[in-house]
Amino acid sequence: MSIIVMKFGGTSVANIDRIKNVANIIESKKKEGSKIAVIVSAMAGVTNDLIEKSKEVSSNFSIEEYDVLLSSGEQVTAALLSACLIDKGIKSRSMMGWQIPIVTEGQHKNSRIVSVNSKSILEYLNNDHVVVVPGFQGISDKLRISTIGRGGSDASAVALAKALNAERCEIYTDVEGVFTTNPDICNDAKKIEKISYDEMLEMASLGAKVMQSSSVQKAMMNDVEIFVKSTFDPEKSGTQILPDDRISYDKVITGVTYTKDDAKVTLIGVKDKPGVASAIFKPLNDQNIVVDMIVQNISADTQKTDVTFTIKRDDLNKTENMIQNLKSEIGFDKLLTDNKVSKISIVGAGMITYPGVAFKMFNTLASKKINILVISTSEIKISVLINEKDTELAVKTLHSAFDLN
Amino acid sequence: MSIIVMKFGGTSVANIDRIKNVANIIESKKKEGSKIAVIVSAMAGVTNDLIEKSKEVSSNFSIEEYDVLLSSGEQVTAALLSACLIDKGIKSRSMMGWQIPIVTEGQHKNSRIVSVNSKSILEYLNNDHVVVVPGFQGISDKLRISTIGRGGSDASAVALAKALNAERCEIYTDVEGVFTTNPDICNDAKKIEKISYDEMLEMASLGAKVMQSSSVQKAMMNDVEIFVKSTFDPEKSGTQILPDDRISYDKVITGVTYTKDDAKVTLIGVKDKPGVASAIFKPLNDQNIVVDMIVQNISADTQKTDVTFTIKRDDLNKTENMIQNLKSEIGFDKLLTDNKVSKISIVGAGMITYPGVAFKMFNTLASKKINILVISTSEIKISVLINEKDTELAVKTLHSAFDLN
Repeated sequence: MSIIVMKFGGTSVANIDRIKNVANIIESKKKEGSKIAVIVSAMAGVTNDLIEKSKEVSSNFSIEEYDVLLSSGEQVTAALLSACLIDKGIKSRSMMGWQIPIVTEGQHKNSRIVSVNSKSILEYLNNDHVVVVPGFQGISDKLRISTIGRGGSDASAVALAKALNAERCEIYTDVEGVFTTNPDICNDAKKIEKISYDEMLEMASLGAKVMQSSSVQKAMMNDVEIFVKSTFDPEKSGTQILPDDRISYDKVITGVTYTKDDAKVTLIGVKDKPGVASAIFKPLNDQNIVVDMIVQNISADTQKTDVTFTIKRDDLNKTENMIQNLKSEIGFDKLLTDNKVSKISIVGAGMITYPGVAFKMFNTLASKKINILVISTSEIKISVLINEKDTELAVKTLHSAFDLN
Repeated sequence: MSIIVMKFGGTSVANIDRIKNVANIIESKKKEGSKIAVIVSAMAGVTNDLIEKSKEVSSNFSIEEYDVLLSSGEQVTAALLSACLIDKGIKSRSMMGWQIPIVTEGQHKNSRIVSVNSKSILEYLNNDHVVVVPGFQGISDKLRISTIGRGGSDASAVALAKALNAERCEIYTDVEGVFTTNPDICNDAKKIEKISYDEMLEMASLGAKVMQSSSVQKAMMNDVEIFVKSTFDPEKSGTQILPDDRISYDKVITGVTYTKDDAKVTLIGVKDKPGVASAIFKPLNDQNIVVDMIVQNISADTQKTDVTFTIKRDDLNKTENMIQNLKSEIGFDKLLTDNKVSKISIVGAGMITYPGVAFKMFNTLASKKINILVISTSEIKISVLINEKDTELAVKTLHSAFDLN
């Protein structure tokens, strides 16, 4: 009998009625004859409330105790859902991270799962139980409660699916699946039936908030097949994420994504000498400021150049201060910043075989008089930075130009 | 260096400001040079909120998952308080029931602590840490989270004090200590400086809500010295609970207590034959209905008798139904019930050596025309059942008659 891992996010378990709805979905799935392990997030709002409390205590809250604090949220959901199932006559039990155990490594607040002991879970699954596991939590090698930073409960689901050698991992969320672009902006956005891990990775990291990119990566590395489905419409097929050799691409582009949390930094008149890029980017790296797009222009003055890069908007103040402090070291004439920018990307594994995709993208934007500030590309995506005010127009125009509607 | 266990109840940790206040109390105590282990309750309101959620799921919520659910409340407080201490530069860590472990036996939702492993706690205490332990929780022999029914966090504090061989156990609450009676009713009620375990047991079970009686009993059996103190005025001396051979009694009576959650049941015309008491009380016992006071009157008809007893008001409906169903088996003429009653008690280890205390009590009540419905006595207390409307008058009159003001 095959094992299925089902993961339910915060909005899917936001209140008791929704938790009862989740119990119904699990009941139906169980009747189909699979063994079921469930990962749950904290009820929507609970994690933020706990974070708020930690901030009230201290802006420098102990990371060990932060994990003890936050893990309680998922614990509550696991107990409520398991009791719901028991109340319906389904054998069930919750298993905390320490009871399994789910072992993590790395710093508290930002741990990574290194192993999931499947033994005790399998015992219960084989004894006809649904096992409900709180996501986002594990225990460190020092036997302290840890939480998983990036990926959170998605990462727990993928790790559990891998450990149990599950047939598949179903990610239940509040949307029907992954869309060609945000339906809020573009009302003819369509649900994508199948998407490759690579494409999903680009979509996820570029702003399609359905699944965390690090979890997609882990699924890819471990061949865990993923279905993104809607908790509120579980009968619908959702989106399947699988290796790209199992997808036939009938379209050049799979989706259009955008982010609005970027900021652009330009250093005018940087001395064009070896080591200057390192002088700029090393201090940023040391401060954990992630630099995304980087462009270096040859300016008219051949001894000098302009360097432009993008960072997260939240890091802008810190970055400005740091660069001003390093002015003499780096050597530049002027620092310009712009936080009214957004990044638009087209993603598609199909674009490798179609030349002229980039040209078509730039041309389409130009036809709407949308100015491109920075460009960056990879094998399966092209991103451009534009003025934030043009975001909606750019997304709509590209979505239609590449026949996604 | 001596070890002190400090326990803080729900109102003492009701919000972040109060948790910071608790951290200050611990800091002062630590400066005095003791090693400190702390037990915390859930923040006021949290436990009720979780119980509410469980009721929304099912009136028959799984008791195993109930413990997983409720234990999260104390976990949150432990993390917040420990982080608060760390933020003040005090070494600290939280330790969950399963990390210590605190081993329990008996049914979930109503477990008893059988052992507290002091090894890992002592390691941290000896390494200059404050150890913060969530009260109310432990783990069962099946390694599942359990909660302690009666006594709750007080029981955790006493068990921890015993395991650590602590110099004393300080119970911090929202009142200054144990009072001669409820100050809300009697504004000349006085704080009791010293009280014996026995007296405190009677006071606790009779309605002085400062400490759970089962925890007092456990403290008595294990010679754990207890101080009840105010979180909001920690400099004040509070009430010390200790063996009665270390107290000199200058007053006959230590306190006046009352409860308003009783109900009276009377069976008129019960056949006066062997086994009839068993026929009445065995089924009640089987249904976990606790019977408190029992009186049997000889009625005029020598073949018949009247039996009166008191139970908790919540159990009245259940008890009425049960007795009506057993009417033919028991054999009685009429069933009378009254839930507008209250129990007034005077407590004092000193009364053993003073004759006439009971007479003085009855006389005092009679002088105010307060009718006594049932009487019960023990070595150190006399309780009477009266009409609920007379409660306040009875308490005030007795408090003054026995010179407690």
